[in-house]
Amino acid sequence: MKIVLLGSGNVASALGVALQLANHDVAAVWSRTAAHAKELADKLHTVFTDELSALPVDADLYILSVSDDAINTVATDAFFDGKLLVHTSGTSSINIPKISGVFYPLQTFSKQRAVDFTTVPILVEGLTDQITDLLVNLANSISKTVQKASSHQRKALHVAAVFANNFSNHLFAIAENILKYNGMEFDLLKPLIAETAAKVQVLSPQLAQTGPAVRNDQLTINSHKTFLAEHDSLELYALFSKSIANLSQTP
Amino acid sequence: MKIVLLGSGNVASALGVALQLANHDVAAVWSRTAAHAKELADKLHTVFTDELSALPVDADLYILSVSDDAINTVATDAFFDGKLLVHTSGTSSINIPKISGVFYPLQTFSKQRAVDFTTVPILVEGLTDQITDLLVNLANSISKTVQKASSHQRKALHVAAVFANNFSNHLFAIAENILKYNGMEFDLLKPLIAETAAKVQVLSPQLAQTGPAVRNDQLTINSHKTFLAEHDSLELYALFSKSIANLSQTP
Repeated sequence: MKIVLLGSGNVASALGVALQLANHDVAAVWSRTAAHAKELADKLHTVFTDELSALPVDADLYILSVSDDAINTVATDAFFDGKLLVHTSGTSSINIPKISGVFYPLQTFSKQRAVDFTTVPILVEGLTDQITDLLVNLANSISKTVQKASSHQRKALHVAAVFANNFSNHLFAIAENILKYNGMEFDLLKPLIAETAAKVQVLSPQLAQTGPAVRNDQLTINSHKTFLAEHDSLELYALFSKSIANLSQTP
Repeated sequence: MKIVLLGSGNVASALGVALQLANHDVAAVWSRTAAHAKELADKLHTVFTDELSALPVDADLYILSVSDDAINTVATDAFFDGKLLVHTSGTSSINIPKISGVFYPLQTFSKQRAVDFTTVPILVEGLTDQITDLLVNLANSISKTVQKASSHQRKALHVAAVFANNFSNHLFAIAENILKYNGMEFDLLKPLIAETAAKVQVLSPQLAQTGPAVRNDQLTINSHKTFLAEHDSLELYALFSKSIANLSQTP
């Protein structure tokens, strides 16, 4: 397919690479900031612009991969009249003027790390069955895991992803701070973090749970709370301990 | 070394296997519950008892791997007079009667999963330099990562491990619940969880952070809060979003 990428962030960048690997034609990159567009276009050996009116008008698909608050602003441009425009957001609905579909890759992308896109689940939604089919086919060309999802389901998935990724990453940052403060290196926790993630690939997280909260070991919980008395994270510690105990009592 | 294992839980079990792999002699397993002792002793092809007085008296080391509230009770037994007794707890201090050292393996152990013990950091502490050296040597025989740590540092590490492992696992359980409630499978999140853990092996978690909270994307945060309005996890969502924003503003 002949595709135009609108946006130059982590998602646009990873998507551009994956589309080219599957032999799609990334015909141009647009960004509001010309330098950002150029950076990604150089990586993809394609052309760039910061003017929508300078983009090719004959692409099969225009993929809008910008922040949620920018989607509305960009999508309303008259350039997109009669064109197939989709966004890549987990949270934004399909019901946005001139948006015909959604192409949501569920992964955390950083410019510093290459991700194997064939392992990235892609959730698609189209305004018509024909658009949905086109997006499913495109998704199947770059990923092994493709599903249709409604805007509501996609939002649920995005919220769940925030818990699973952003919040757990923040817990790692808190753990790093606790160690640094006590003269130890974050490296000590890396095998534990790797095993935590590996375990839930094969065991339900509820079954995988260990530690003082699920054992209702109040001696240890209180000792940890005392330890954290002066620390910002005491509130999180208490809330988690309560929440884990509640979940473990749910049949 | 000739070693007696006191306890039959996940840590005792993983440790017993690792000690045997390194050609140590696990001479007996003790547990307050004979059936539990038998189960582990069978796995290790050794003998078991639920009577401390029936244990070999000539072992080089007695490793007490029981819950924190049981350590004091077991350790006070007259059997341990003149013997080298260490515990494996992250939280308990070395200052417990008849305890001479600590041998703390930092990992989450489940009976369902075998862990490569050579990758498990072991933190040791001894009442004397001689005991510390003996424990360091033993730890080096089963792991590539061995460090001395004070009781205070070990507690910091255990608290950090609770954040990094138990709490992140609980976030995965919450994410699973959100997906189930909306008719989707937890499988969709597995690549994201794997990448979350893989990323912090090479990037500091603070640098690895992505998502609405670190971008200060209030539109998405508010949309997620509305989505979670009826859900138990709204309080955690709000607390994390605030905490991530605070950390990202720290220079």
